[in-house]
Amino acid sequence: MTDYRIESDLLGELQVPAQAYYGVQTQRAINNFKISGQTLSQFPEFIKALGYVKKGAARTNYELGLLDEELYQYIVKACDEVVEGKFDDQFPIDMIQGGAGTSVNMNANEVIANRVLEMMGKSRGDYQFCSPNDHINLSQSTNDAYPTAIKIALYNMNAILVQKLIKTIDAFRAKGVEFNDVIKMGRTQLQDAVPMTLGQEFEAYAANLEEDISKLNNNALLFVEINMGATAIGTGLNAPPMYAKRCALNLAEITGMPMVTAPNLVEATPDTGSYVIYSSAMKRLAVKMSKICNDLRLLASGPRAGFFEINLPPMQPGSSIMPGKVNPVIPEVVNQVCYKVIGNDLTVTFAAEAGQLQLNVMEPVLCHAIMESNNFMSNALDTLREKCIVGITANKEVCLNMVKNSIGIVTALNPYIGYKNSTKIAQEALETGKSVYDLVLEHQILTQEKLDAILDPANMLTPHNLL
Amino acid sequence: MTDYRIESDLLGELQVPAQAYYGVQTQRAINNFKISGQTLSQFPEFIKALGYVKKGAARTNYELGLLDEELYQYIVKACDEVVEGKFDDQFPIDMIQGGAGTSVNMNANEVIANRVLEMMGKSRGDYQFCSPNDHINLSQSTNDAYPTAIKIALYNMNAILVQKLIKTIDAFRAKGVEFNDVIKMGRTQLQDAVPMTLGQEFEAYAANLEEDISKLNNNALLFVEINMGATAIGTGLNAPPMYAKRCALNLAEITGMPMVTAPNLVEATPDTGSYVIYSSAMKRLAVKMSKICNDLRLLASGPRAGFFEINLPPMQPGSSIMPGKVNPVIPEVVNQVCYKVIGNDLTVTFAAEAGQLQLNVMEPVLCHAIMESNNFMSNALDTLREKCIVGITANKEVCLNMVKNSIGIVTALNPYIGYKNSTKIAQEALETGKSVYDLVLEHQILTQEKLDAILDPANMLTPHNLL
Amino acid sequence: MTDYRIESDLLGELQVPAQAYYGVQTQRAINNFKISGQTLSQFPEFIKALGYVKKGAARTNYELGLLDEELYQYIVKACDEVVEGKFDDQFPIDMIQGGAGTSVNMNANEVIANRVLEMMGKSRGDYQFCSPNDHINLSQSTNDAYPTAIKIALYNMNAILVQKLIKTIDAFRAKGVEFNDVIKMGRTQLQDAVPMTLGQEFEAYAANLEEDISKLNNNALLFVEINMGATAIGTGLNAPPMYAKRCALNLAEITGMPMVTAPNLVEATPDTGSYVIYSSAMKRLAVKMSKICNDLRLLASGPRAGFFEINLPPMQPGSSIMPGKVNPVIPEVVNQVCYKVIGNDLTVTFAAEAGQLQLNVMEPVLCHAIMESNNFMSNALDTLREKCIVGITANKEVCLNMVKNSIGIVTALNPYIGYKNSTKIAQEALETGKSVYDLVLEHQILTQEKLDAILDPANMLTPHNLL
Amino acid sequence: MTDYRIESDLLGELQVPAQAYYGVQTQRAINNFKISGQTLSQFPEFIKALGYVKKGAARTNYELGLLDEELYQYIVKACDEVVEGKFDDQFPIDMIQGGAGTSVNMNANEVIANRVLEMMGKSRGDYQFCSPNDHINLSQSTNDAYPTAIKIALYNMNAILVQKLIKTIDAFRAKGVEFNDVIKMGRTQLQDAVPMTLGQEFEAYAANLEEDISKLNNNALLFVEINMGATAIGTGLNAPPMYAKRCALNLAEITGMPMVTAPNLVEATPDTGSYVIYSSAMKRLAVKMSKICNDLRLLASGPRAGFFEINLPPMQPGSSIMPGKVNPVIPEVVNQVCYKVIGNDLTVTFAAEAGQLQLNVMEPVLCHAIMESNNFMSNALDTLREKCIVGITANKEVCLNMVKNSIGIVTALNPYIGYKNSTKIAQEALETGKSVYDLVLEHQILTQEKLDAILDPANMLTPHNLL
Repeated sequence: MTDYRIESDLLGELQVPAQAYYGVQTQRAINNFKISGQTLSQFPEFIKALGYVKKGAARTNYELGLLDEELYQYIVKACDEVVEGKFDDQFPIDMIQGGAGTSVNMNANEVIANRVLEMMGKSRGDYQFCSPNDHINLSQSTNDAYPTAIKIALYNMNAILVQKLIKTIDAFRAKGVEFNDVIKMGRTQLQDAVPMTLGQEFEAYAANLEEDISKLNNNALLFVEINMGATAIGTGLNAPPMYAKRCALNLAEITGMPMVTAPNLVEATPDTGSYVIYSSAMKRLAVKMSKICNDLRLLASGPRAGFFEINLPPMQPGSSIMPGKVNPVIPEVVNQVCYKVIGNDLTVTFAAEAGQLQLNVMEPVLCHAIMESNNFMSNALDTLREKCIVGITANKEVCLNMVKNSIGIVTALNPYIGYKNSTKIAQEALETGKSVYDLVLEHQILTQEKLDAILDPANMLTPHNLL
Repeated sequence: MTDYRIESDLLGELQVPAQAYYGVQTQRAINNFKISGQTLSQFPEFIKALGYVKKGAARTNYELGLLDEELYQYIVKACDEVVEGKFDDQFPIDMIQGGAGTSVNMNANEVIANRVLEMMGKSRGDYQFCSPNDHINLSQSTNDAYPTAIKIALYNMNAILVQKLIKTIDAFRAKGVEFNDVIKMGRTQLQDAVPMTLGQEFEAYAANLEEDISKLNNNALLFVEINMGATAIGTGLNAPPMYAKRCALNLAEITGMPMVTAPNLVEATPDTGSYVIYSSAMKRLAVKMSKICNDLRLLASGPRAGFFEINLPPMQPGSSIMPGKVNPVIPEVVNQVCYKVIGNDLTVTFAAEAGQLQLNVMEPVLCHAIMESNNFMSNALDTLREKCIVGITANKEVCLNMVKNSIGIVTALNPYIGYKNSTKIAQEALETGKSVYDLVLEHQILTQEKLDAILDPANMLTPHNLL
Repeated sequence: MTDYRIESDLLGELQVPAQAYYGVQTQRAINNFKISGQTLSQFPEFIKALGYVKKGAARTNYELGLLDEELYQYIVKACDEVVEGKFDDQFPIDMIQGGAGTSVNMNANEVIANRVLEMMGKSRGDYQFCSPNDHINLSQSTNDAYPTAIKIALYNMNAILVQKLIKTIDAFRAKGVEFNDVIKMGRTQLQDAVPMTLGQEFEAYAANLEEDISKLNNNALLFVEINMGATAIGTGLNAPPMYAKRCALNLAEITGMPMVTAPNLVEATPDTGSYVIYSSAMKRLAVKMSKICNDLRLLASGPRAGFFEINLPPMQPGSSIMPGKVNPVIPEVVNQVCYKVIGNDLTVTFAAEAGQLQLNVMEPVLCHAIMESNNFMSNALDTLREKCIVGITANKEVCLNMVKNSIGIVTALNPYIGYKNSTKIAQEALETGKSVYDLVLEHQILTQEKLDAILDPANMLTPHNLL
Repeated sequence: MTDYRIESDLLGELQVPAQAYYGVQTQRAINNFKISGQTLSQFPEFIKALGYVKKGAARTNYELGLLDEELYQYIVKACDEVVEGKFDDQFPIDMIQGGAGTSVNMNANEVIANRVLEMMGKSRGDYQFCSPNDHINLSQSTNDAYPTAIKIALYNMNAILVQKLIKTIDAFRAKGVEFNDVIKMGRTQLQDAVPMTLGQEFEAYAANLEEDISKLNNNALLFVEINMGATAIGTGLNAPPMYAKRCALNLAEITGMPMVTAPNLVEATPDTGSYVIYSSAMKRLAVKMSKICNDLRLLASGPRAGFFEINLPPMQPGSSIMPGKVNPVIPEVVNQVCYKVIGNDLTVTFAAEAGQLQLNVMEPVLCHAIMESNNFMSNALDTLREKCIVGITANKEVCLNMVKNSIGIVTALNPYIGYKNSTKIAQEALETGKSVYDLVLEHQILTQEKLDAILDPANMLTPHNLL
């Protein structure tokens, strides 16, 4: 009894596990690429997208008379099973491989071909009846099928990310409402500036992230432009004339995405511009998230020797030595995810720049980096919302006291006594420790009534006409 | 006779050159920041934008009754002169400064105030008649005026860049037409693939860059969203209620840009998202330009030991030791500019992430990095077009011979004899050095007539039905 | 029957799997950090290092009279088991967590404490007899124990990496010897330069990488400087006076590494400088490896439309559509690993810059990024050597023909006829297609005998006196 | 009367300003490269180094009998003048150029040749008597002379940088002594940790930066390994056998640097590893400086709503709208320089990775990026020291009060009452607002005498035995 079957290719024969749906070329890739330990199996959206692409290709071939009815039906069924995730364990190739995705494309071709053979009652590897190259890969090349699958996967992964982003925004917004009456000092350059509310601060986080919804979606929209029909280098060799357009239409119907054929397939084949700018959009989100988490940690600093304006929900003891210490562990982990996303964006930049002539051979790492960033950021957004934002509380008294003691409120006097006089009051306040309020009265600069109105923090939160 | 006048501020008195239009705060910045040696004077679009902002602010203050007619008219005139570049030498501050732009904003305020004083017949520094803070900066803060000026400048600088990009695209496109009948081998992974034309290759460069026109423009469009009226932290303290909207309208009219007030000024004030993504768009252009220049250098490699498909116009002797050597110096310099742009994008990323609470204090370096990238890339595009692209010629015979000798054309046989049989022909061709054509005939696989049609390179350049 | 036991901490009670050696704080971390899916369990060198640290701490505490004999012996035994890898599955925490490593440190403390309790015949969680904090973490803080473990792990992981690097160098060197007599054209700026041997080219790769052995080792040597005894912030609070020095000595003995106490523990605690520069050294290796792989792909380009000087061993069919195509998949995958390493280096840069005051809380991602780079690069080096370098063969005839046809050999005439005359010959050769050799004779510039000697490629491979 | 003279080269004739010492090839570079506006003239250390290299080469050629006495003496004199800076304005080439430095090398060759001609009483351009290529560039190629000049320049620029770094360290150290008795709370993760002194904090900055002295110097030491004698590709074609070693000796004597010939010149010629790692060392310094400046800004935050532990010297009014506001402008500008250095390091990474085969053609941008970082950082260090560090003062009372009110001091109780009991005290303190001290007494956990000793902050600053 043998556990292996023998398959052959250009390089000769090779053992493949007898029960594997994948074949010789997948096996070569398993043997060749032991790099990251992260396989396609861990990226189900990617496998799903490969199923879509192969189904769309098959339907197009069938419509153009290149596949007979029976084989077509089997192929569709096999593709549907790939989409459903039934063969996720049959995609054991390392996400980082050489060959510009040929191994991955052949992995999909082989799994589908062998599943078809199984349905036909044939043995695995008996490719005369259904060949990975001649039937499943018909009218295709890795150079069109592989990037199309990546783009479908990323489009869908973006939708998941944006969903989580929206929930995060909602959580910040709700806190914005909750903290609407918490008056506090605004700070610029870490120096006391002028009053605002904590609600304004949290609403600003919501508004800030909100801009990234359309930024992500618009950039993800570049992924709907595909190059099916391009075959090897965009000239469409071995694809029939109507193939490209029809295949895009079929994929649009199958995926529900607004797929279109790229206007110039020779251009589209090596182009990685959509990855570069989508990765940039994720980087922008990471930069913003990192800034916000830095802020949350600043605002929660203390409890006695920091700002202590807000409390983050305690998630775990903060120290193995300092009893009672609680740390802002959730913003901290989000910061770190942001650094990974920024690092991955650089990986994408290098990989994109390395394209040569009619192809960019570095697509696998580019795909891996973006998908990793997407996964990590999605997880981070959920973590931040559930385990931090929703539980934040305000130290209202602390916030108010800082306003009362502040010198920054002197700014409100400018329109009444001029910048130069205000400067003098500010200097005296700083040197003597006296309050701005007392000094203005002491110097008889304004009546108490008027001063009360001007220095009422509530009057400083929005534009006002002269009082 | 003294060459200096004395001015004073919060920190006391300071000497300022007697004839300088700038004042004490500019002088402090000159003294404080000796960093890059690159001053605002070298960035005229930035100074122009400061003139616009101050004019827009003055008009708004005037309309709201905060400035009297006479002073307003003087201010407008001074601002116009700033816009015209008459005071470019009066902006001596290092582009990289601390203070989040306060020095730059005050530089503009001081130059305009002193020019107004001059028109009034007053002495420089006699700020009781026209004060940099109380009159020129009225209803403003650095935190709204400074980023607004940056955004106006970048919007206009983008227009210049895009103009040059369009010319570059046109130049590639013209070559695409010129090389329309130059048949050559396409290459994937640096290995011979299938035939294409050199025209397709150059048209693909045009098409590839063309996508970046809208990408740059769309991202530059984020710069029209400004925060005038936000004052210190976005709460609009000391700005009258209608100020923000009116000021945006006035700036729109003055600049001809579609200016609008950001929907949330507390959010907008520390936000650097527009810089991040615009820089990313420039980085994407750099990645593409770098890839294209790498390609040009590959295609021109040789003359005897390289691809030698194209000739770049010789620009200078290539070696101090190797006579007759001519190097691809123009693509080489463009590559290097691309690396600077990518490096600057990282600087922007760091600067953006460093925002804290109600402000991002790192805006000066962010501004410097983007403007530098814009300038360098603009120069590089002109250089590449004028000194390289337009003069490229094709080595038609070299290109054709590589197709004739290639094994890659065996791909065209797939639909007729299957992938597995084609593979055998390819292997034999590689091992024996025989041509694919001869082998097919030798093995009597196809008739000569049919083979001639299939292997005609002209039939491989676009999708075809089975012959 | 229950599958859980109840433990408690500062935040209250929590269920922990009954059989788990880890305890409540590990469980909180599992719950809090679902980010990368990559757990400590996948980084056995890290777990091993945690075992070393805890053993070294225990021995020091015992020597200083802080632990009694019996408990000490149990702890040592438990630590040894951790080192042996017996509890690798008991470290389920995500590599990317908040809390600056507290969860990881407590994970080690808890596993060891519970294993001690088990040996004592006590129940898990019965911490009165052996407490994770009071006994296992005695005289320590996360802020000393955690980075010390990272450093031990990285030191050992570096040794593995360097071992693989040395083998790679040896493989290049062997090829350098093998190709010693293969004369070929050298190329600068992708243009034909002057002759060299393929052996010189491969020996240069060996020599180039060789420099990185000491670079990596010297930078890894920074990891032997540890901060045990620093406790929370470097002041050594709760650690006895001799603890730091003794603990370093003990760790040196236990690990065989030349451990020393950092000269200033307040400085050492937040410092991440050793990570930054070690990551830079890995980045340098990545930059070099990427350049070399780019070269290999260039030299192997073809077979008919490229340089085709060398053949890489074929590893898999290169295309799903182009029969017979074989691609340089191994260098390609190594390039991609290099981009990941460069990206991770940026992650490290961001994480290091984010340190604040007495700690850098971003150490987990910093640790993850470096360990990932180390693993990927180690795998890439093995892959490159085994599956590519050792099997490379030379196309000797191709190489020699390019030399014979080249114009670049005209350089050798400089010392005899001057740069200006040589230039004229070169120009004429390029324009007429005639050889340099023929032209020199035609113009009767040198005798054939002398010319033969000068233009003998063998005479161009090393410095020569005038002939 | 004409302002121009005519020179010619491989590409034909060209006008050169009649009085220019530079010649046709420099003029071509001026025409070809209008990129950054930053010319060699602004980098005097680089020009000086070119003078050294040409002098060393001439001396070697003379010693080997390749130059006659008279010409040699003239060349030496001309080189000395270049070193003295007499011709700084004769190096008008953009720092960012194509051609791998050939233009720069020829610029030096031409200036020296024409100065020699002048001394000979010949006309400029009359190169038959002294040729830029045949005499000044004798036994050299750009590919050895250019990188050797860069390395000499960087070695010397590093010495300047390190000098400024040492002064900065000294300034921090002096503050460490000055603040020796200022007791304050240490903070980890921005949360109150345990007590320390402000002196310890500043001494830690000194100690932290001190490590970078040797790091910079050791990496700069890689620059002494040069490739003179390599000529075009390291094979030494056209250089006599003893040239390389002798030239290194001569350069060592001329520059006072410990110059040696690289062991493998074929390897050394394209290698950019020394640039990569030296840039990394500058990046490490930047990361540390940025962290320190972030800290300074945190510690100086306030004055009423921040930490307010220290005062930075006020350098300029902080706001155009907020009177009396003073911002930490000096640390802010240093942060921004750090981001530029980090960005430049990425430029270096890209440029280094782009090396191909026997040369790295991207050396000009690599050189520009490193020299710019060096200049900016040197300026930033001076600025930080003079305008910030030396004037920092401590708010001693503020610091002490935070310690008195802190909960973190509970950590000191661990060894006496255990982590679990300490936790309870900490929790009660946080919830009730009572002090740790009062609670311990209230619960009669320790005697007042013992408690006083344990909680004396002075006892918490260094390791102690149990009291």
